[in-house]
Amino acid sequence: MTAASPNGPNATVGPRSDLTAVFELAQQLRVDSVRASTSAGSGHPTSSMSAADLMAVLLARHLHYDWQRPDDPGNDHLIFSKGHASPLLYAMFHAAGVVSEEELLARYRRAGSRLEGHPTPVLPWVDVATGSLGQGLPYGVGVALSGRKLEHAPYRVWVLCGDSEMTEGSIWEALDKAGRYGLDNLTAIVDVNRLGQRGPTELGWDLEAYANRVEAFGCAALTVEGHDVAAIDKAFEYATQSERPTVILARTVKGQGFSEVADAEGWHGKPLPSEMAERAIGELGGVRRLTVRGHGPRPYQPPARPAAKEVRLPEFELGEKVATRSAYGKALAALGARPEVVGLDAEVGNSTHAEDFAKVYPGRYFQSYIAEQQMLATAVGLSVRGWRPYAATFAAFLTRAHDFIRMASVSRARLALCGSHCGVEIGADGPSQMGLEDLAMMRSVHGSTVLYPCDANATVALTAAMADLEGISYLRTTRGGYPVLYPAGEAFPVGGSKTPRSSADDRITLVGAGVTVHECLAAADTLASEGINARVIDVYSVKPIDADALARAAEQTGALVVAEDHRPEGGIGEAVLGALAERSVAPRFAHLAVRDLPASGTSAELLDAAGISRPHITDAARRLLSG
Amino acid sequence: MTAASPNGPNATVGPRSDLTAVFELAQQLRVDSVRASTSAGSGHPTSSMSAADLMAVLLARHLHYDWQRPDDPGNDHLIFSKGHASPLLYAMFHAAGVVSEEELLARYRRAGSRLEGHPTPVLPWVDVATGSLGQGLPYGVGVALSGRKLEHAPYRVWVLCGDSEMTEGSIWEALDKAGRYGLDNLTAIVDVNRLGQRGPTELGWDLEAYANRVEAFGCAALTVEGHDVAAIDKAFEYATQSERPTVILARTVKGQGFSEVADAEGWHGKPLPSEMAERAIGELGGVRRLTVRGHGPRPYQPPARPAAKEVRLPEFELGEKVATRSAYGKALAALGARPEVVGLDAEVGNSTHAEDFAKVYPGRYFQSYIAEQQMLATAVGLSVRGWRPYAATFAAFLTRAHDFIRMASVSRARLALCGSHCGVEIGADGPSQMGLEDLAMMRSVHGSTVLYPCDANATVALTAAMADLEGISYLRTTRGGYPVLYPAGEAFPVGGSKTPRSSADDRITLVGAGVTVHECLAAADTLASEGINARVIDVYSVKPIDADALARAAEQTGALVVAEDHRPEGGIGEAVLGALAERSVAPRFAHLAVRDLPASGTSAELLDAAGISRPHITDAARRLLSG
Repeated sequence: MTAASPNGPNATVGPRSDLTAVFELAQQLRVDSVRASTSAGSGHPTSSMSAADLMAVLLARHLHYDWQRPDDPGNDHLIFSKGHASPLLYAMFHAAGVVSEEELLARYRRAGSRLEGHPTPVLPWVDVATGSLGQGLPYGVGVALSGRKLEHAPYRVWVLCGDSEMTEGSIWEALDKAGRYGLDNLTAIVDVNRLGQRGPTELGWDLEAYANRVEAFGCAALTVEGHDVAAIDKAFEYATQSERPTVILARTVKGQGFSEVADAEGWHGKPLPSEMAERAIGELGGVRRLTVRGHGPRPYQPPARPAAKEVRLPEFELGEKVATRSAYGKALAALGARPEVVGLDAEVGNSTHAEDFAKVYPGRYFQSYIAEQQMLATAVGLSVRGWRPYAATFAAFLTRAHDFIRMASVSRARLALCGSHCGVEIGADGPSQMGLEDLAMMRSVHGSTVLYPCDANATVALTAAMADLEGISYLRTTRGGYPVLYPAGEAFPVGGSKTPRSSADDRITLVGAGVTVHECLAAADTLASEGINARVIDVYSVKPIDADALARAAEQTGALVVAEDHRPEGGIGEAVLGALAERSVAPRFAHLAVRDLPASGTSAELLDAAGISRPHITDAARRLLSG
Repeated sequence: MTAASPNGPNATVGPRSDLTAVFELAQQLRVDSVRASTSAGSGHPTSSMSAADLMAVLLARHLHYDWQRPDDPGNDHLIFSKGHASPLLYAMFHAAGVVSEEELLARYRRAGSRLEGHPTPVLPWVDVATGSLGQGLPYGVGVALSGRKLEHAPYRVWVLCGDSEMTEGSIWEALDKAGRYGLDNLTAIVDVNRLGQRGPTELGWDLEAYANRVEAFGCAALTVEGHDVAAIDKAFEYATQSERPTVILARTVKGQGFSEVADAEGWHGKPLPSEMAERAIGELGGVRRLTVRGHGPRPYQPPARPAAKEVRLPEFELGEKVATRSAYGKALAALGARPEVVGLDAEVGNSTHAEDFAKVYPGRYFQSYIAEQQMLATAVGLSVRGWRPYAATFAAFLTRAHDFIRMASVSRARLALCGSHCGVEIGADGPSQMGLEDLAMMRSVHGSTVLYPCDANATVALTAAMADLEGISYLRTTRGGYPVLYPAGEAFPVGGSKTPRSSADDRITLVGAGVTVHECLAAADTLASEGINARVIDVYSVKPIDADALARAAEQTGALVVAEDHRPEGGIGEAVLGALAERSVAPRFAHLAVRDLPASGTSAELLDAAGISRPHITDAARRLLSG
C-alpha cells in the first residue's frame, strides 16, 4: 500500500518545514519501522513507534549532521541507548538518504547485512554498539566529555533511552557523572512508553518520579508529551540552551499510531504479521517518500593536537625491586607525551598508580569515583572521538564492568585496560580484592590482547605498546615489588615470550607469568641444585600466546609445568594447552593454579597455600620427571 | 597502655545504659580498631573510627541479636557494606564477647585466621562477604525481602555503607528495589566521612544531596551528626518505626577521635605506626574492657514451611522440538512444589521462561526489572535465609553481574543461575544479545557447577539437580527448539556425559554441548555415509567435566573435535583439553568455536558463519583423519 504524502512525493523536510511536515516525517518513520521489521520477520516496531515523533523532530530540526560525511568532527552524535529500536534508527538513516528503501526492507536483520538487529559501528553513522540496556547513555557521557573537556567542540550528544533501562544502576552512574562534569552538551531523551519487555515498567508513566531522580543526580529534567511535535521541539530547544545536561522525559505510547497495538501488552519485540502491517500502514497514512535535509554540522575545526613530545619511558635497574603496578603508573605518565593518551580512574589511582599520570596531565585525567561501569563507558566514548584511553582499577573490580567490556568489543573500541592487585599475591586484604578470574574474562573478549608482565621494564614496554594496539588490550599488574629481570629497553613484542632460563639439556619447562615467573626461577634454582636443568618461559603475552616457543620447549624438554596466580579455568594453563594442541604437541603436563578459596596472609603464605609457590613448582616438576 | 574505663573494668553496656556509657563503648571500638590494625600491620583504622559511634549505639541499644546463637531466626542482620571497616566489625564482635582480645590482636589479617581483611561468612556472625564496594546494601535488600515478603519475620536488617560506594550504580538499584518492595525492615547507615581512598568523595559532606537522591529513589532519608550518640540513637529509633526503608546519612569525621589523623587525607587503609597508635589510644582514653549486653532477638518462631509436595517434573517426547529455555521454565514451575524454591527475573521472564514459575507461585517470584546486579544480590540475600533462589536472564547479561557472582562465591552462597539465549544460535538479534563469554565467566567462579543441556529432558533433570547443589550452579539454555534426544526420566548426573552415538570401531570423537550436540550428530551421519564411524559425546556437564569418558574416547578413537557456541577461550574446548591433560591423553585435536564477531542472520546461517555447524564439524573430522 502506498499513499501520497500530504507534502507531495519526494518532498524534503528540514529546519524550516512546519511541524505538520515533521509529523509526516514521524509517520514515515513509523511506517518504515513497521515495514522493515515485518519484512525481516523480527524486530521491535512498537518500541520504534513510541519514539518516532521524538526522533522526527530531532532529525529535522535539531540534529546537526552531515549524512554524507559521518566523520565530520562537528557532527552531533546520536546514540540509541534503546538499541532494539533499530527499525526507527534505520528508518531515520533512510529518511536522511543514506540507506535505500531496498536495503531497509530487504536487508534488515539478514545475514551479512550492516543493518543488524541492534546497531553497531559497521554503520558509519553509529558510534557504539548498543543492545545491552543501560549502556548507551554512559557512552554518551564519554563522547560529551570529550566535546566539553578535551575538544571544546560545538557538537551535541543526543541519547535516546528506553524507560525500562532506567532501572540499570549504570544509568545513574552516567547521570551522576554528566552532572558532575557539567556536560551541558548532552541531552538524554527517555521514551517513557510505560511498557517493558514483559509488562508494565516499574514507574509506568510517573514522569515526576523520573524527574525527581534526574534532578537529584544533578541534571535538568524536562517532561513532555512525547507525541506533541511542538512540545518536543520546544523541549529540544530548551535542552540546547540549558547550562546543565538535560533529560527529556517524554510520555509516549508504545505502538503509537496503530490502534490495534497502541499501549497494548504482548507486542514487545514482535513484528506485525503482514496483514496487520498493511492495516498499520493504512492507519498511519501510507508509505511516504520524505527526505530530510536538516542542519549541517556546526562549524568546527578541531584544534591541531600539540605535536607528540618525545616519549621518554622510565627505566629500571636489573635486580631493583619494583611493583609492576608502579611501573605502569610511571610508564603511563611518560606516555602522556602523546597528546591522545587519556587516563581514567575509579577512585583507586593511588593503588593502580594511574595517579602518576594525573600529576603530569591533570587535564587529561578523569576521575570516575567508584563506578567501574561508567569508567569503561567513558573510555569507550572517548575512543569514539579518537582518544587513547587507559583505564585502571583492581583486576577484581574490572569484573564489575564485564558487560561494558564485552559490548566495547562489539563497538570495535580501542581501549587499554589495566587491572592491578591480581591474584592471591596481594596478601592480607583477602579474596574480595584478589583478581582471580580476570584472565578468563579478558581472554574471552573478542579481539582482546592480554598482557601480564613480571617485571618493571616489561611493564613499561607493554604499557607503551598498548597505545598502538587495536581492540581491547589488558595489562595485569602485581601489588608487591619483585626484582627487575630484563634490561631497560628490551623489546617485548605482543605474542612473544621470554626464556630467562634455558640450557641445551633442559629436562623440563616451567611456564609462568607475573609473580609466578619469579617462583619458577626459584624452582629452577632448586632443581638445578639437584642436577635437573629446567627451562623457564615467561608468557608475558597471554593472548596471543607464544605457541612456537611453548611447542618448541615442550618438544625439547617433554614436560611442562604451568603455574599461575589465577583460577585454573580460562587462564594461562588452558591458554598453554590450547596453543600446544594447535601445534599437536603433548608434553607431560602439570597445572598449578588457585583452586581453593583464599583468605588473608602474607604474599608468600598465600602463594604457598594456593600451591603455586616455588616448592610446589619444584615438587610438580619432580613428580612429572619421575612419573 | 591501659586505662581504666570510666565505667569501671568489665562493665557492661546495654539498652539501659546511659549514653555516656555508649560513648565509652564507641571509644573502645576505636581503640580496638587501632590496636587490631596496628598489630596486623595493615587495615583501615580511620574508616573504622568514623563509624564507631554509629555502631556503638546500634550494638548497645538497637541491634536485636543473640551472639551465642547466630543462627537464631529472630536475630537482626548486620552487614558491613564498607567491608574494609573490618577492624570495627571485629571490635564489635569482641565487645559482644564472641571474639577474644587475643584473637583480635594476634590473628587479624593473619594466615589461616577467620578475621580476614574483609569479612566473610567463615565468621558465624557474618551473612555475606563484602569488600567489593556497593554490594552489601544490595545483599541487605535480599535479606530484608525475605523477612518482609517470605518469612514475615520481625528481624531488621542494618547495613553500614561507606560514602564512597554511593557512586556505584548498584547502590541505586538496591534503594530503588527497597522502596518498591516497601522494605521498612531495612536501615542503611551511610558513614559520610567525606574522604575516599585517594581523596575527597564526589559529594563530600553534602548530606542534602545524598538525601535528595535517597528520597527520589523511594526511601526515607535522615541526616544526623554521626558523632552525637544521642542524635544517632533518635535516628535509629525513627528508622525502627518508619514505614519506609530508611537511609541514615551520618556526617562523620574519618579518623575521628585522634587529632593527628582526623579528617586528614592520606590515611585511608593505613594502620597507625606503633608510636602513633600509642598516642591515639591515649587520646581516646585508653584501652577499655566493656562488654555489650544488648537486646536479644525479637521472639520469632519461623512458621513451618508447607511440606514439599511431590515434584512432578515435565516430560518430553523423543524427537519433539523444544527449546531448552522453555524446558527450564516448565521444570522450575514443577520444582516450585519444594517450598524453598524462589524465582527471580530481570525483566526477561517471558524469554527465559522463568515466568512459568511466576504463574504458579507468584508469591515466591520477584521481579528485579532490568537490574541484573540487584537480581544477583537479592538471590544471595535470600540464600542467607535458606531459600533456594533460581535467577535467570540472558547469558550475555549475566556478565553485568559478574562481580556479584564472584563475591557470591566468597560468600559461600548457594544459587542457581540460568543464562538463556546463548551463542550465535540466537540468530537475528545480533552480538549484543549473544552469550558468548558466559562459560568462561562461570567456569572461573570458585566452586561453580556449569551445565549446558542439549535437549528438554536433560534440561529438566539438571534444573532439578541444581536445587541440591552446593555453591553457584549455572545452567545455559538455548533459544531455538531442537529435537528431544533422551527419554524422560533419564539420569543426568553432574560430572557425567552422554554418548548418543558410538560403535566398536569409532575413528573419531565429536564433542559438543547444547546446540552443537545436534550439529555433531548430523556430522556423524555424514561421516557414517562416508564409512567413518564417529562417536558423539554430549558434555552437558561442562564443570565438572567427564574426564573419564573424554579420555576413554580419546584413547579409543585417537582424534577429537570439539565444537562450541562460545568464544574459544575459557569454554568447552579448553575444559576438554584440561581434562585430557590431567589424564595424560593427547589425541589429534580440533577446536571449533566462535572466533569472529557475529552479526545478524538465521541460526543456521550464523552457526555456519561461525564455523561450528555440521559441515564444519565434518570437515574438521576429515582433516584430522587425513592429517
